[in-house]
Amino acid sequence: MTSNINIVKIGGNIIDDENKLNQFLQDFAQLSGPKILIHGGGKIATEVAKGLGIEAQLVDGRRITDTEMLKVVTMVYGGLVNKNIVAKLQAFNCNAIGLTGADANIIPAQKRPVKTIDYGFAGDITAEKVQVRNIQIFLDNGFTPVIAPLTHDNNGHLLNTNADTIASTVAVALAQSIATNLTYCFEKKGVLASIEDEKSVIHQITPESYQTLKQDGVIVQGMIPKLDNAFEAIETGVKSVFICHADDVLSILEKKEKAGTELVHK
Amino acid sequence: MTSNINIVKIGGNIIDDENKLNQFLQDFAQLSGPKILIHGGGKIATEVAKGLGIEAQLVDGRRITDTEMLKVVTMVYGGLVNKNIVAKLQAFNCNAIGLTGADANIIPAQKRPVKTIDYGFAGDITAEKVQVRNIQIFLDNGFTPVIAPLTHDNNGHLLNTNADTIASTVAVALAQSIATNLTYCFEKKGVLASIEDEKSVIHQITPESYQTLKQDGVIVQGMIPKLDNAFEAIETGVKSVFICHADDVLSILEKKEKAGTELVHK
Repeated sequence: MTSNINIVKIGGNIIDDENKLNQFLQDFAQLSGPKILIHGGGKIATEVAKGLGIEAQLVDGRRITDTEMLKVVTMVYGGLVNKNIVAKLQAFNCNAIGLTGADANIIPAQKRPVKTIDYGFAGDITAEKVQVRNIQIFLDNGFTPVIAPLTHDNNGHLLNTNADTIASTVAVALAQSIATNLTYCFEKKGVLASIEDEKSVIHQITPESYQTLKQDGVIVQGMIPKLDNAFEAIETGVKSVFICHADDVLSILEKKEKAGTELVHK
Repeated sequence: MTSNINIVKIGGNIIDDENKLNQFLQDFAQLSGPKILIHGGGKIATEVAKGLGIEAQLVDGRRITDTEMLKVVTMVYGGLVNKNIVAKLQAFNCNAIGLTGADANIIPAQKRPVKTIDYGFAGDITAEKVQVRNIQIFLDNGFTPVIAPLTHDNNGHLLNTNADTIASTVAVALAQSIATNLTYCFEKKGVLASIEDEKSVIHQITPESYQTLKQDGVIVQGMIPKLDNAFEAIETGVKSVFICHADDVLSILEKKEKAGTELVHK
């Protein structure tokens, strides 16, 4: 059994910028020990959809996945983004293997039930359903899983699942048997007290200070689902959660330098 | 060590027809023992390229892969086609895992040198470079690799590689340690003596009769690279090679019924 694992999620804005992505992947490849990379999709899916004359629909920042859009995200997330990351990591001597939740059945999902909104082919997931044994086989053999934000319904259909949710859910599932660190990397230095000031990083957030920061309007809209996911992760066994700039992942996780925002229990 | 493995290649015309593909995958899922599926791309890549305003270029039936076309085949072969096959196989209780040659570094390639024609991002492969150990890890753990016709140059670039070539090369590599059966499935009943008569299947071809069939113009253009690959495979250790209709794969490989064309040593 492995003693420690890093689960790193890389966000869309880094993926959209080839130089930034290369730099990040070079750093990620240097992380010692077992690790998993989970990637978002970036703007490429929207661009490809536009090119093919398919209109992207969003409700509350979440994509509505109709049949045509499912094809686009399968092409872009499962193919273009995932396989390019794998090829680049191989060049950095990291033995990456690109996966969706359907591959080796690692993340079975349930198609989201229609309530007020029909999200289409959107997949809801739980840590209990994650096939930890199969993920462990890859890790035990020295492979680094690179997971695209796609799952499946075990009935032949792929489903679109938020990458932040996949990261926290896989982290919670693995945390039952391994000490698991979860790190969300994006284009900002961390959770900022003032959105326009990159120096205003909040270094630590507790469940209590999170409530205050939300009430005071410091943490708003886009960050809330990410932090909700992250707090759920540490409350259900994940050892540490960092939110940081993609440039800082190596110094935080390897050199233990202070950077980014750490979420703590209390 | 496994005693026997089936390597099956499914061609483009079946992939383009969802009903035929579903029927084939249901049959493939029922094949007993370890197995690998290798798929072509079909017309979808050309259609997606057209939709995005990218023109497909072919020379001697081989695709010229420029930067834009590489993106398209990565999306379509590595994403859309591969991941849909994986999700469908999972529904048929086959624990499929979708791979390109970059994943787990299973098929490193060399970018084709420019002689008279610049094929662009086309990858040439050899059986010696195939990472049999990594493929074996998947098989030993009960996974069924589903391989897209993409490889990589170990320098961060994906490459486009003919699916027939991947099938025969992987078969030759595995045949060094396992009894390996290679089956090419497509939309015809086998190699036909008369192209318009589905009943004119040539049941057996030897290296000698192959030469005669070529000289007499019975075997022409499109079939020649496929048969060259296939004969190379049996001459370098592959136990059997069949060319048959997708509908017949189960009856040939499981029930040992006579169908399709078998290539034999002498």
